[in-house]
Amino acid sequence: MTLKHSRPAQASADSLLRIFTAPEDETSTLSIIEQKLSEDLAGFLGESIAALEKPLSLIEKDFQAHQIPTQPKFVSDYTDEIMQNLVAHSVHTAAPSFIGHMTSALPYFVLPLSKMMVGLNQNLVKIETSKAFTPLERQVLGMMHHLVYQQQPSFYQQLMHSASHSLGAFCSGGTVANITALWIARNRLFKAQGDFKGINQQGLHRALKHYGYDDIAILVSERGHYSLGKAADLLGIGRDNIISIPTDANNKVDVNMMRQKAAELTASNIRIMAIVGVAGTTETGNVDPLNELADLAQKIDCHFHVDAAWGGASLLSNKYRYLLNGIERADSVTIDAHKQMYVPMGAGMVLFKDPELAQSIVHHAEYILRIGSKDLGSQTLEGSRPGMAMLVHACLQIIGLDGYEILINNSLEKARYFAQRIKDNPDFELVTEPELCLLTYRFVPAIVQQKMALALSRNDQSALKQFNDKLERLTRFIQKHQREQGKSFVSRTRIKPAKYHRQVTTVFRVVLANPLTSEEILNQVLEEQSNIAKLDKQALSALLTLAEHYK
Amino acid sequence: MTLKHSRPAQASADSLLRIFTAPEDETSTLSIIEQKLSEDLAGFLGESIAALEKPLSLIEKDFQAHQIPTQPKFVSDYTDEIMQNLVAHSVHTAAPSFIGHMTSALPYFVLPLSKMMVGLNQNLVKIETSKAFTPLERQVLGMMHHLVYQQQPSFYQQLMHSASHSLGAFCSGGTVANITALWIARNRLFKAQGDFKGINQQGLHRALKHYGYDDIAILVSERGHYSLGKAADLLGIGRDNIISIPTDANNKVDVNMMRQKAAELTASNIRIMAIVGVAGTTETGNVDPLNELADLAQKIDCHFHVDAAWGGASLLSNKYRYLLNGIERADSVTIDAHKQMYVPMGAGMVLFKDPELAQSIVHHAEYILRIGSKDLGSQTLEGSRPGMAMLVHACLQIIGLDGYEILINNSLEKARYFAQRIKDNPDFELVTEPELCLLTYRFVPAIVQQKMALALSRNDQSALKQFNDKLERLTRFIQKHQREQGKSFVSRTRIKPAKYHRQVTTVFRVVLANPLTSEEILNQVLEEQSNIAKLDKQALSALLTLAEHYK
Repeated sequence: MTLKHSRPAQASADSLLRIFTAPEDETSTLSIIEQKLSEDLAGFLGESIAALEKPLSLIEKDFQAHQIPTQPKFVSDYTDEIMQNLVAHSVHTAAPSFIGHMTSALPYFVLPLSKMMVGLNQNLVKIETSKAFTPLERQVLGMMHHLVYQQQPSFYQQLMHSASHSLGAFCSGGTVANITALWIARNRLFKAQGDFKGINQQGLHRALKHYGYDDIAILVSERGHYSLGKAADLLGIGRDNIISIPTDANNKVDVNMMRQKAAELTASNIRIMAIVGVAGTTETGNVDPLNELADLAQKIDCHFHVDAAWGGASLLSNKYRYLLNGIERADSVTIDAHKQMYVPMGAGMVLFKDPELAQSIVHHAEYILRIGSKDLGSQTLEGSRPGMAMLVHACLQIIGLDGYEILINNSLEKARYFAQRIKDNPDFELVTEPELCLLTYRFVPAIVQQKMALALSRNDQSALKQFNDKLERLTRFIQKHQREQGKSFVSRTRIKPAKYHRQVTTVFRVVLANPLTSEEILNQVLEEQSNIAKLDKQALSALLTLAEHYK
Repeated sequence: MTLKHSRPAQASADSLLRIFTAPEDETSTLSIIEQKLSEDLAGFLGESIAALEKPLSLIEKDFQAHQIPTQPKFVSDYTDEIMQNLVAHSVHTAAPSFIGHMTSALPYFVLPLSKMMVGLNQNLVKIETSKAFTPLERQVLGMMHHLVYQQQPSFYQQLMHSASHSLGAFCSGGTVANITALWIARNRLFKAQGDFKGINQQGLHRALKHYGYDDIAILVSERGHYSLGKAADLLGIGRDNIISIPTDANNKVDVNMMRQKAAELTASNIRIMAIVGVAGTTETGNVDPLNELADLAQKIDCHFHVDAAWGGASLLSNKYRYLLNGIERADSVTIDAHKQMYVPMGAGMVLFKDPELAQSIVHHAEYILRIGSKDLGSQTLEGSRPGMAMLVHACLQIIGLDGYEILINNSLEKARYFAQRIKDNPDFELVTEPELCLLTYRFVPAIVQQKMALALSRNDQSALKQFNDKLERLTRFIQKHQREQGKSFVSRTRIKPAKYHRQVTTVFRVVLANPLTSEEILNQVLEEQSNIAKLDKQALSALLTLAEHYK
């Protein structure tokens, strides 16, 4: 075998310079792989990723060395290694049958564009290292702002590129977006006043002292994303001050209970800093009643944030955008482009209704981010950042609103189709209906469903618990086994459905955002699950016996 | 012209599916560009990026539309547009004469590997969406941990892949790394105790109350990175509690003054939460006396963090690693791989001496990050994250320690060469000597240097101020003009050198981490600056007149 390398495996100044100046030979291993990526991504992923799951403990054996190797390595040798050790045991997130998480197939054009982005290696923290990427990112934020808030053209003409305004902040993902929104909410609440120089300068305890509150709180549905708890921890507020409000039978926050809780807290001299609406929830895909939450936030004069990290892309559908009605009243909105917008991982955004909102977290430095500059870094949590906004820009232009309309509608309608198939199948139970394109269900043999209905009609919670416990084992088995077989993947989670009197219920969770997922694939997923259920004979027979004996 | 598109510019379900299934034709605009990137990145960048700078206000005109376009667009048309509007007016950060910031040329192999990373589209938040990428990232953190802390092999065998330990956290960049370190320091200081459930649960004000402190503070050199102030704001501590300690003549923090300040604060019942050492500073590239800081941190029992975002890569050189002596005593260390390690933007890390450190920020969620899982997301500030660790892994293996030794040494020695050239040139003044590979200087005509020396010998601060003011104008002019000409780029900053009695001094700032920057290029930079200086006749003659009249 003749090896052609741009890079000899020895360290000399000359050979090292070559990795910066001489490209990989066309016939090198890496070039051949790259060619395959360009010509047939699905084929590459399908062939390169092992179908059968290898246990993590075995995979770890290939990543045991703790010393940086002394000797340089040939690029081709390295490529061969990671194809075997890494790529083969990565997750085929783009597979049409991978419907367990929010990652989808990617359009082809993002691959060469990503490569261009990496080659350009811009740093968006400041104009000096990003130039045109700065107005591009501002435009992406402007377009997404318009998608949510639909202000007049003059609004965007004046503010989109203004140094002292920002229509949003681009970031690595929804977690940073949510943290940024709550950071702003906190800082605006405790702004400078009289002797007090502001929470940003003097900290939370002096802020509380100055404003005379005993504590602050954030109100959110019990289905709020875990990043909110992380934000409360990080911001010095404490996780206990994320006040979790129960949801109704449709997994939407109970606004009456929130209103009541707000009154109680206010009476105890605890200031409500923000209400967070969820659109949709990570576990069931439901959207909170955003207009009612906006009313409440207005009444108690607090920040209203909507976490639409996953669901926000539904605004791109004229047909279904009504499902997020009220989102335009939010002070800030989180949307992840790497979820339903078909952009690769690492593209989060938070949008600000009021373009002066981010002033409360503005910071400067001598060598960059000078006062009056348009450097994006002066209003972001992150510092150095890549030019990911370019990929969002590309998708918005190349797919267009008309294209997204079709893609989003297809996803939502596919979820409705799948829900119907689950309902039609006597051995499955649809646990939560799809509002957007996420639903939960489980395998429950027909006889068990009948007996559980009976137990429900008698309000026999103890029997229900027995059924649910046995079903949990089976659900976990099916999910794990299906994943390990490598044909398809659904995720699982634990929720507390109103129907089962809030008993913990383990369910399959399915997200249908991949345009390549066909109805046939969905039918196969159910069939595969039915078959796997039979493999855990013990669990299945224990369940059936329980059902038979319940009279 | 025959257009070949994988994607017709119309929205139909079929045409949309094609962007996910049919690659770009080989003869399409985007494919041709991609080919050029693979074959000749430097050529592509050189030809595609406009040499002459276009004013930002004109660039913005191409990014004015605020509505997401309705109609889809051909990929080729989009590509043509961004080549003209975006790529042409991006910044040639990889140019050997772009020596103003910390971005360098990239090795060729990172381009195809990045494309593979994007195509695989893993999400590192959890194993279910990243599988082998999880142990890979843990190995990268292990190797970097070993680079800093050099623990025994058994340490890494036991802990590198342990679910309840982490040797570090991978993140988008140094800012998030620094925030993570200080978040951990804060949470460990205020851990649960008796009735108090911990700051993560109950927040900062209750923590202070429980522990009986009036406030908390972080001690750091006045040259500390601006992300530390941002962290203090975010964490609820307040920017005023970042206590800025003066530096000595070499821009290293004055440990005596820090010691004194620590005693004062402690006497005022202000708890010192952390000492941050800088290695090296963003503006002058100097390294704090880390061992002395470690001693002090030990004495007052606080967290010791080292911000080596930029300088940390110097540990890869056996010859120069001594410059960071004491870093191995830090509780946490920030290192950015996208600075001197030749990895593209978006690869930050914080390393933990104690693998249980991150326990203080651990969080879980039902559908992912279950207790006992090895999901990386349970101990990171960010949620969803791309598989950037792969690119660090690749560079560590392909370049190897022997390769980095050469690259890092070359950078440091190039900086010494350039410093000597500046000193040899009668019309330039070296303001700060390079300790790593960063230095600052300015253009000061010989006659002005003589008269400033005279003013210094007389301690005539008023005269010095006059000279410095006039020099500032000239320095700014040269820097801006040089950037606009597009041949080379140095950055500028304002520092307060001890030599000039802390008068604000505007300087050129140069970072020499690009392996392709030759001595010839450096000589040209000085020549170009001399020539540009003559263009601002007014500023130059005012300066010379001032010098002539100063006797």
